[in-house]
Amino acid sequence: MKAEIICVGTELLLGDILNTNARFLSRQLAALGITVHRQWVVGDNEGRLAQLVHEALERSDLLVFSGGLGPTADDLTKETVARCFGDTLALEPSILQNIRGYFASTGRHMPPHNEKQAMVPQQGGWFENHNGTAPAVWFEKDGKRAVLLPGPPSELHPLWNEQVGPWLAAGQKQMLYSLVLRVTGLGESHVEEKVGHLLENQNPTAALYAKTGEVHIRITALAKTQTEGEAACRAYAEKFYAILGDHIYGEGDKGLEHALVKALQQKGLTVATAESCTGGLVSQRITQVPGASEVFGFGFCTYANQAKHKLLGVEDRLLETVGAVSSQVASQMAVGAARVSGADIAVSLTGIAGPGGGTDKKPVGLVYVAACRGNDVYVAKLLLGARDRQSIRTSAANRALDMARRLALGLSLPGTKHFAADQTADFEAEER
Amino acid sequence: MKAEIICVGTELLLGDILNTNARFLSRQLAALGITVHRQWVVGDNEGRLAQLVHEALERSDLLVFSGGLGPTADDLTKETVARCFGDTLALEPSILQNIRGYFASTGRHMPPHNEKQAMVPQQGGWFENHNGTAPAVWFEKDGKRAVLLPGPPSELHPLWNEQVGPWLAAGQKQMLYSLVLRVTGLGESHVEEKVGHLLENQNPTAALYAKTGEVHIRITALAKTQTEGEAACRAYAEKFYAILGDHIYGEGDKGLEHALVKALQQKGLTVATAESCTGGLVSQRITQVPGASEVFGFGFCTYANQAKHKLLGVEDRLLETVGAVSSQVASQMAVGAARVSGADIAVSLTGIAGPGGGTDKKPVGLVYVAACRGNDVYVAKLLLGARDRQSIRTSAANRALDMARRLALGLSLPGTKHFAADQTADFEAEER
Repeated sequence: MKAEIICVGTELLLGDILNTNARFLSRQLAALGITVHRQWVVGDNEGRLAQLVHEALERSDLLVFSGGLGPTADDLTKETVARCFGDTLALEPSILQNIRGYFASTGRHMPPHNEKQAMVPQQGGWFENHNGTAPAVWFEKDGKRAVLLPGPPSELHPLWNEQVGPWLAAGQKQMLYSLVLRVTGLGESHVEEKVGHLLENQNPTAALYAKTGEVHIRITALAKTQTEGEAACRAYAEKFYAILGDHIYGEGDKGLEHALVKALQQKGLTVATAESCTGGLVSQRITQVPGASEVFGFGFCTYANQAKHKLLGVEDRLLETVGAVSSQVASQMAVGAARVSGADIAVSLTGIAGPGGGTDKKPVGLVYVAACRGNDVYVAKLLLGARDRQSIRTSAANRALDMARRLALGLSLPGTKHFAADQTADFEAEER
Repeated sequence: MKAEIICVGTELLLGDILNTNARFLSRQLAALGITVHRQWVVGDNEGRLAQLVHEALERSDLLVFSGGLGPTADDLTKETVARCFGDTLALEPSILQNIRGYFASTGRHMPPHNEKQAMVPQQGGWFENHNGTAPAVWFEKDGKRAVLLPGPPSELHPLWNEQVGPWLAAGQKQMLYSLVLRVTGLGESHVEEKVGHLLENQNPTAALYAKTGEVHIRITALAKTQTEGEAACRAYAEKFYAILGDHIYGEGDKGLEHALVKALQQKGLTVATAESCTGGLVSQRITQVPGASEVFGFGFCTYANQAKHKLLGVEDRLLETVGAVSSQVASQMAVGAARVSGADIAVSLTGIAGPGGGTDKKPVGLVYVAACRGNDVYVAKLLLGARDRQSIRTSAANRALDMARRLALGLSLPGTKHFAADQTADFEAEER
């Protein structure tokens, strides 16, 4: 089956936003064994859109749209495609009720505009949107289909995953199954050195993708059933596990924060955070995981020196001599966070995220990450280079989450120095 | 002038990579006053590409390509477009020498494949690539032009900025200037009700974009010079300011955290945060702004009840009776954060981000946000609906940032209740 992806939105043509929907839909269609041979982006212009739909129907079997389903007058994708498919739209009372309920749940009245979102195809069909007001709709004519999805990713993704994807999958003979292995603690070229020989295979295929602070390995199998595809990917994944070991921290779309929360839950442990340069990024990521409250209760965002001293008991003497960005202060932050919170494990970060504040001795990108459990403190000194503030913070947060994960699981902590918690003020000698 | 952007690459159609080139080129062309009315992505397939080029030349004046200029056999963009334009390619010795030099500088010999990168149009022309081996090339026929750029952004951006952009600009008589107004505290449909009559204008144009927890208004003027465009946008923006007032918190690409840090800097004030359901998202956003250390020193991530009591002095009695998700606890969290930190302003958030944890009385999406300054405490009760966890947290964080901004600037706090800081435990009556 040949498909085209059509994203509607002037903001895409103006370059205001990145087209993440095209990528998402391409991946999803590839996984169903449906070949995407074009993606295109057009503005909210009825004439241009209708012309393109007619052209696309000449060459393709399936058109997948995103965007243009909003309540305003210039949202006209649904009306235009309906005409191209010779279908008509009519008001669906159950959707109208949902939209009214959606507004009521946020304490507002539905503006009259939004009524047009409740219009659905009379020959085609629709899928209910549980995260917004625009339902997905589909049209069919002469064996060719169009599916229209709302543009916001927070609505498009669940609609696809729960309803539209399975509906399309039901008609497919071969499908692709993918498995992503998530690797931390090794750069892309190091991963490639170790597993390069596994990247030349025909089926399953495997490819590396460098991400901020981690590397992903995507394994993809072409198979007749999901079960067969899953078994092929799993068998191939074992080859990577045999080489990379506990550098593979998880699979799929769940980041290090999920791996940490899971490890803590498994071991019945809790974690606390003490953050300076990351300003709450680590605690924010941990608490983005549903159920984090079982394993996380206290986070300290000690951006000022005074906060490090007052909340965590970091010695003023150290802040004045070796400075806030030092392995000693990182250690005392972690130890203080564990003591005040009573958590089993604590992690801390202090560094220079830039763009200002760097010196020759302490350049932008220098971050100390400490993790403690009981009387054991481990400190990593990161030199993340003069990258942008956000990348430095993300990479440092990844390292903190991984160190906590390793402590929780009883794994070794490569690339760290070990100290005793009651001696964190006395190891200047180690530093120099 | 009408343009189309054509990105060539199977990895884009498979969804392996995000199409950042389409966004970059769209922005650059818009700034030159060249209207992009379509973007395309196609694979490395000669027949499909040739068909698309012929179609595009029927309707557009300029085709801008990225990708497909590599050394391998399946890189055939240049050869295909040359045929469509009736041009031929010939070896350019100076480029071949550059490519050989490029390989030598990395200690390697040029593989024979790469020779095809030195082939340039005989009627059109080329631009030297200082960051890679593939030059940009252009073709012209009957007043229509095509420009072909290499795919890697590290080569495409400098080629555009230094050579291709200025070359296109030289032929332009008009350009576009854009201004984005950022609106908070009003939903998209409410903004549209208020300013709908301003969205029908011809020049400047204005359009609304709904974002999580805020709305953007983009004003775009077509003008002869940048100065003229800027003046036209500014004059039109004043009409929006007259209607929306301080709901417009900023302009351009800077979020509420930037507006808050700027307001605090202007007034010489500091802020502290106390977060439960957002888990550090607010402090993380504030500290994402370079220079935040001037106005922010202390953040409390009190996810557990014990943390709310121990770090912020929230009364156990309240946590047991009205519960952590209540206006009383939100108030005491803010007051406690201000007291412990010594900050001028403090904001707090407590709520149910879901997906679990909701009840009939306290549903998912219920968040209390409190802000205090001196003895004044303001509490907003948000009903954000059963959306995904991340949207609920983002919207709640936006409200907290905006309340702090309003307190800093001495603005009113619409949609809040006002209490005295020393009576936050006693206002159960207000609640019921």
